[in-house]
Amino acid sequence: MELERIGRVLQAMKERGLSQMIVCDPQSIDYLTGVHVAPFERLFALYLRADGNHVFFLNKLFTVPETPLEKVWFSDTDDSIGMLAQRIQAGEPLGIDKEWTARFLLPLMERLPGTSFQLASDCVDSVRARKDAAEQELMRMNSRLNDEAMTRAVAYIREGMTERQVANFLMAQYKELGCEEPSFSPIVSFGANAADPHHMPDDTVLREGDCIVLDIGGRKDGYCSDMTRTYFCKRVSDKHAAIHDLVRRANEAAEALVRPGVPLCQLDKAARDMIAQAGYGEYFTHRLGHFIGRTEHEQGDVSSVNTTLAQEGMVFSIEPGVYLPGEMGVRVEDLVLVTAEGCEVLNRVDKHCQIIG
Amino acid sequence: MELERIGRVLQAMKERGLSQMIVCDPQSIDYLTGVHVAPFERLFALYLRADGNHVFFLNKLFTVPETPLEKVWFSDTDDSIGMLAQRIQAGEPLGIDKEWTARFLLPLMERLPGTSFQLASDCVDSVRARKDAAEQELMRMNSRLNDEAMTRAVAYIREGMTERQVANFLMAQYKELGCEEPSFSPIVSFGANAADPHHMPDDTVLREGDCIVLDIGGRKDGYCSDMTRTYFCKRVSDKHAAIHDLVRRANEAAEALVRPGVPLCQLDKAARDMIAQAGYGEYFTHRLGHFIGRTEHEQGDVSSVNTTLAQEGMVFSIEPGVYLPGEMGVRVEDLVLVTAEGCEVLNRVDKHCQIIG
Repeated sequence: MELERIGRVLQAMKERGLSQMIVCDPQSIDYLTGVHVAPFERLFALYLRADGNHVFFLNKLFTVPETPLEKVWFSDTDDSIGMLAQRIQAGEPLGIDKEWTARFLLPLMERLPGTSFQLASDCVDSVRARKDAAEQELMRMNSRLNDEAMTRAVAYIREGMTERQVANFLMAQYKELGCEEPSFSPIVSFGANAADPHHMPDDTVLREGDCIVLDIGGRKDGYCSDMTRTYFCKRVSDKHAAIHDLVRRANEAAEALVRPGVPLCQLDKAARDMIAQAGYGEYFTHRLGHFIGRTEHEQGDVSSVNTTLAQEGMVFSIEPGVYLPGEMGVRVEDLVLVTAEGCEVLNRVDKHCQIIG
Repeated sequence: MELERIGRVLQAMKERGLSQMIVCDPQSIDYLTGVHVAPFERLFALYLRADGNHVFFLNKLFTVPETPLEKVWFSDTDDSIGMLAQRIQAGEPLGIDKEWTARFLLPLMERLPGTSFQLASDCVDSVRARKDAAEQELMRMNSRLNDEAMTRAVAYIREGMTERQVANFLMAQYKELGCEEPSFSPIVSFGANAADPHHMPDDTVLREGDCIVLDIGGRKDGYCSDMTRTYFCKRVSDKHAAIHDLVRRANEAAEALVRPGVPLCQLDKAARDMIAQAGYGEYFTHRLGHFIGRTEHEQGDVSSVNTTLAQEGMVFSIEPGVYLPGEMGVRVEDLVLVTAEGCEVLNRVDKHCQIIG
């Protein structure tokens, strides 16, 4: 399976006129080779070549399974960048992974002054973006577990609880549901805290009338889920219920348009226009969605400037929101999988305005 | 406090002939400004200038406290790199944070073809490396909690338990001890698994005669602890006990040399020579230690090639190890704080060969 994936990356490199590229994102390397390493600050690189003579650059501390790829091993005290530079075809453009850090990139550029360095992650990311059947099934199953986690949270939450308490409850649920870990630190935001889309759970206590934003996901078998629902504690004002209704309809309007060939910016526009027409345009402060898979944010977004066309197998979030500073926030998010004729919404938890607690 | 830290960074920049620098490591920015953001794939940069006209580059999604620094806000769809490029003094050398990724660095280099980009993290890292009194106290207190976590693990571990079970127990202890989280995923390795210094806990069951490597730490108030002890289950062979004794003595030999002015490579040499003389040199496969503070691995290491002199306030690990493939591994690690006249060993859990379980 993995070598077939490298073949697709080489094809994408060819289309860009690249005969060589350095991949360093551990998730991309795992995806392409089945080798998983957590390199921290150490060099970990897969050098791909059009002629098939790929080379793995590995610290002797890393433990890797057998692979058919050539390996260059170095220790903490070796000149690993020099060893890498020796293998590069100097003078030929070199593709670079977007995740590569300056600590490696700048010294390598110094060694290869005549070589043009080009950001080339798309060659890998465009392949990763289209999930194959096995990956799709993992994404589907994980969203099923995420639905269950959300359902349990709704049953658990009561007035008087703190955000941290709910976040801890959720983390325990992912463990119980067999996930390796949450795919990101659960966002649990009450009332005015929810005006910050990325608020981190603290000791804020849930009070009657507060909105409750739950943005949660788990990682299982290496793939991530991600969903947001917004509820209200014990009662909801007409204004807040109307905002929730608006955001939910914006979510559904965008989802209804998902099919192969639709420009991703059109999805963003459908949701954004609806929110703007209701007078809340300036309070929808972020893009509509992001790609997801092996990490909770993979390359690619659903934004007003991304003219990429949706393709079968892509999985991304649709998550419009309205954030009123000092008052509240509402976000409604599903993951969608692009299918041959439209899309499959991977989350099934009811999205309507609900009172809980 | 923070502005004083920026002053020290500017001084370090001046010594390198740099009048401008981009800092992007969120930990460094927090350290210098008190502003904490988790930017994920979004641009987050602090542009420092010798003339004091520093600029913060912030995505509108980030929530930041008041600071006296000038701010440039951008949205997901703005040309944020272009906005950054406009503020840089083109033609003057630009210092770059080692953590900056190619996704930002390569496009910025394209915009500023006449500017020399230089790796300049040392200007920040050398300041971060010397902990001030408040930081030293946090490091001390956190190692005290880590001692307690280790003591609880020793009392808990029994033959028949799995690595994962012990790791889960440890994670619960950090929570109970008031830590925000483990400072890294706890390493719990039994028997032959311990031959991989970075083995991740799995379902391996503890058996009589196995070594037990526990490499653990917690993060509290933003600072990290890190310690390793190696035990044996129910009995230990003479060979393994001798290896443990050797590694412990190598740890103590290096710690005995720590004082301001000692080259870090001398510490590595002291431990490495002792292990080599006993015939295990090739099985001590990593550097002796790493710096630590706000992250579990900060810039700087204690290795055979680092001639940096120890300075008062530095905190690093001393962790020799011997790893026998297919058989076992032993590592003994403390954190040490360099004091005016020598060092303070921050961990107090007994390091001698012990039988538990």
